[in-house]
Amino acid sequence: MSPDESSADWFHEEYKGVSRLGLKLRRHLHSERSEYQKIDVYDTEFFGRVLTLDGLIMFSERDEFVYHEMLVHVPLLSQPAPRDVLIIGGGDCGCAREVLKHPSIERVVQCDIDERVTRVCEEYFEWTARVARDSRCELLFADGIEFVGEHENSFDLVIVDSTDPIGPAVGLFHRDFYTKVRRALKPGGVVCAQSESPHWDPPLVGRIRAELSAVFPKTAAYLGHIPTYPSGTWSWSYASVDRAHDDEFDEKRAAMIDATTVYYNRELQTASFALPNFVREALEGKNRFARFGPQ
Amino acid sequence: MSPDESSADWFHEEYKGVSRLGLKLRRHLHSERSEYQKIDVYDTEFFGRVLTLDGLIMFSERDEFVYHEMLVHVPLLSQPAPRDVLIIGGGDCGCAREVLKHPSIERVVQCDIDERVTRVCEEYFEWTARVARDSRCELLFADGIEFVGEHENSFDLVIVDSTDPIGPAVGLFHRDFYTKVRRALKPGGVVCAQSESPHWDPPLVGRIRAELSAVFPKTAAYLGHIPTYPSGTWSWSYASVDRAHDDEFDEKRAAMIDATTVYYNRELQTASFALPNFVREALEGKNRFARFGPQ
Repeated sequence: MSPDESSADWFHEEYKGVSRLGLKLRRHLHSERSEYQKIDVYDTEFFGRVLTLDGLIMFSERDEFVYHEMLVHVPLLSQPAPRDVLIIGGGDCGCAREVLKHPSIERVVQCDIDERVTRVCEEYFEWTARVARDSRCELLFADGIEFVGEHENSFDLVIVDSTDPIGPAVGLFHRDFYTKVRRALKPGGVVCAQSESPHWDPPLVGRIRAELSAVFPKTAAYLGHIPTYPSGTWSWSYASVDRAHDDEFDEKRAAMIDATTVYYNRELQTASFALPNFVREALEGKNRFARFGPQ
Repeated sequence: MSPDESSADWFHEEYKGVSRLGLKLRRHLHSERSEYQKIDVYDTEFFGRVLTLDGLIMFSERDEFVYHEMLVHVPLLSQPAPRDVLIIGGGDCGCAREVLKHPSIERVVQCDIDERVTRVCEEYFEWTARVARDSRCELLFADGIEFVGEHENSFDLVIVDSTDPIGPAVGLFHRDFYTKVRRALKPGGVVCAQSESPHWDPPLVGRIRAELSAVFPKTAAYLGHIPTYPSGTWSWSYASVDRAHDDEFDEKRAAMIDATTVYYNRELQTASFALPNFVREALEGKNRFARFGPQ
């Protein structure tokens, strides 16, 4: 079943022909084809509004907080006073929304290739328009890889809020891109990227780690629970030349952030890096689940 | 869609009419109605063999290790030398399999009301027959609540490996049952129970905590990632009169267990108790997601 074959009442996302997640729909609110992808917004019974790109769920209102909070607060709390942040992708402004909670932030550059994602989200998600108006935010609609390549020693944090490594986003998972990111970071800077599901695609999680490790001496992965992403288990990758994720952790700043978050808190700053055995193995390129078929 | 309406190629489990998980099938291996429930075994493309009871997934070969390892090793590693364990439910012997990895164990009583579950699993899952033959195991097919009520000061650990709190299992989530469990425990004893999804049913998670807290002075909850359970986020509850989950943690014993496990490890003994903000709130009876509809 391709997404288009979903019945009128249900949206289905299929994972490699072997698993499906179905969401009961109330209404199909929006559908268009931009220059880059098909953009849809649905209203659902249980997940609130849902954004899909090319038929894949980007987020639901019910659980987007997990993804955005964990991708942003973990790396920002690892630094003493981050000022300049670059977000690659992230057109819905969910990451920018979380970045702006940190008082030391002076400038958030969000570089998404598809302006239509932002414009559609401004219409359907309250935070997008609010964040897009913030004077600390610069919204660019351009190729993230090119943009990063044009900057040196400019950012405390680079967030890679990408789609899956198929199609346009594939370059965002490659060491050539990470090499450009390293140059774009200030000393002590950090890159943090969404890095897929270790439950359902251990080889991919291993490849992402290998690419990052080829460029950054310090790498680590952490996990969170996102029901609308494949398997419900999601990983993020943290990398830096010279900073570990718990080097500069500041309890006071974390407490201030904790008061605003639905998922993230101080304990998770370290606990989310405690990985199950099969995830540790996946990061080393081993796949416990090879016998279960296609990955 | 009820489970029976799944197409020949797919098994679907529906959650309260608002969400669905679909697994691509290879073969429907077994189907019967026992005295208590409908028992099915499927072979799937990605999850290996899957056991369902009344159309709900009990486990898949691909991810059962998370559920069984976390339900068993966390409470057993909280005690210095556990000897006697009672498992309520658990007819597939997955919990017993994990319990038997601990050298101090002398006796495992497994009390499941439905003998047919065990007999079917013996045919389709290699561990069931192996564990059922172990001389330390006593398999009883009887009402778990009655059995617990007939014992005093007998067990170091009581594991509640139940189905959801609907139908026959509903009594296993009530303070009257927990009161019997408390009497059945030795001093320093622990009860550990599966306790549903905080992502999709925060009120239920709150009610389970309230029932446990009415009986046990020490309670705690921990989380794990189980892709084939609703939302993919699962919780277990730990309770005791006098022992906290990290009181007696023994690195050496844990290292021995770690070497056998796919999910559990020493770090998770504490890290899995670090709960996201919305889970902490759910345990206090608050529901962040009430606006998203039926729970």
